[in-house]
Amino acid sequence: MDKKTNSAIGVFDSGIGGLTVVRALMERLPFENIIYFGDTARVPYGIKSVETINHYASQITEFLIKKDVKLLIVACNTMAAVAYQTIKDLSSVPVLEVIDASARIAAKDTRTKSIGVIGTPATINSNAYARAIHLLDAEAKIFSQACPLFVPLVEEGWTDNKVVEMTVKAYLGSLKQSGIDTLILGCTHYPLLKKAIRKYLGSGVRLVDSAEETVKEVVVALKKNRLAKKSGKGIHSFFVSDAPDRFIKVGRRFLGEKVESAVRIER
Amino acid sequence: MDKKTNSAIGVFDSGIGGLTVVRALMERLPFENIIYFGDTARVPYGIKSVETINHYASQITEFLIKKDVKLLIVACNTMAAVAYQTIKDLSSVPVLEVIDASARIAAKDTRTKSIGVIGTPATINSNAYARAIHLLDAEAKIFSQACPLFVPLVEEGWTDNKVVEMTVKAYLGSLKQSGIDTLILGCTHYPLLKKAIRKYLGSGVRLVDSAEETVKEVVVALKKNRLAKKSGKGIHSFFVSDAPDRFIKVGRRFLGEKVESAVRIER
Repeated sequence: MDKKTNSAIGVFDSGIGGLTVVRALMERLPFENIIYFGDTARVPYGIKSVETINHYASQITEFLIKKDVKLLIVACNTMAAVAYQTIKDLSSVPVLEVIDASARIAAKDTRTKSIGVIGTPATINSNAYARAIHLLDAEAKIFSQACPLFVPLVEEGWTDNKVVEMTVKAYLGSLKQSGIDTLILGCTHYPLLKKAIRKYLGSGVRLVDSAEETVKEVVVALKKNRLAKKSGKGIHSFFVSDAPDRFIKVGRRFLGEKVESAVRIER
Repeated sequence: MDKKTNSAIGVFDSGIGGLTVVRALMERLPFENIIYFGDTARVPYGIKSVETINHYASQITEFLIKKDVKLLIVACNTMAAVAYQTIKDLSSVPVLEVIDASARIAAKDTRTKSIGVIGTPATINSNAYARAIHLLDAEAKIFSQACPLFVPLVEEGWTDNKVVEMTVKAYLGSLKQSGIDTLILGCTHYPLLKKAIRKYLGSGVRLVDSAEETVKEVVVALKKNRLAKKSGKGIHSFFVSDAPDRFIKVGRRFLGEKVESAVRIER
């Protein structure tokens, strides 16, 4: 087996949301080693400027490349939306990200050609989803909505109470009237709100989970590049920039199992 | 007039909440020059570790001391709660902060000796308010509650809708039953939720606004140290670590008037 095959997949995120991608990776690719970095000392990115997000993304890329990863996954829609090119330019290995995969499945599956996108303010303002979908289908109509309170709600562990229901209604009211048949959950925190969103929008709107779609593309990319690790138990390492306590506690909500430990790196 | 008298008052905050202190300063001390620093590239601090908050607080202190301020105000309860000593050790000028002033007025005015404190998780976990109040009255009973969603709600501009009402009810339900007659709003964002909090708790509970109480102590400290500037229009400068756009936009909610401009400093 090639040395590179045993190298880890590098997953990076502004904080904790990228663990939804790790969860999907663990389920689909149990043999793979994974190194995760969450920038918990500076999270959240979604309300910050393009310049600052690019600066932070460069630092994380350098950290993961030094760990000799074989593939990088930008598991944060905000970074994918505004810093993908920066990350790609710095990276010597293939880079996959959450936006392309979701855009592809949404463009393929919509019948009404009306697609909704929700995300952080930075993701929505970047227009990255609309650009990606229009490359695939110039006629698609895109309806976007920033939902800044969804991340703090999920991190507080509020995913199906009355406050969540009313916040969903406040943010998605116009989208519901727009005739969309597909909604991209354009932030890795949002899959935890699927139940509340589905309840409000009804079963006629398909929810696209960017974590799941990305991992499908990872499977293809590993095969294509002959990088798949095909046996042995995967080793999963977690690195964070703030003290690990909160990451370990909140991480359980995302990963569905305990994050055993996480290592804090120096800023 | 002494050169130092003309020096600015340095106000620092993790982001934008400290502008409630700036607002109270402008009203009470219109002649004073003010230099504000908001760490908008790394905000919020309230969910982060003590070590990280101390590290960031040191950097801000050094920045403001270099600006030759005559007095420092820690206008962020989280920093005051966990990094006050660090800031004081680095500072060559008097340092005032939001916790002491609020603790003093609460201990003085409570009749039931039952005092509520709400703040960010970092502030509440630090127990700083309970310590400060117990130094003044060892018999006081303190009831504390972290309210992590209040900051994102205020920053979204949601201060009196149904979501806010229900979030207030969820966080303050136990406090309401505890017999407190005084509630310290232990975060500079919270005065913007006064109306909703008062509506839920009723007029029998006095709300202590840490911004207002701090500025009363600033007036005393300036007089005592012969540092008051007694004429001329105050000049107000704003420095931030992220791009200034959002700070200027959201700042209006806190300051009640437009932040004309803000300068981004390099990290």
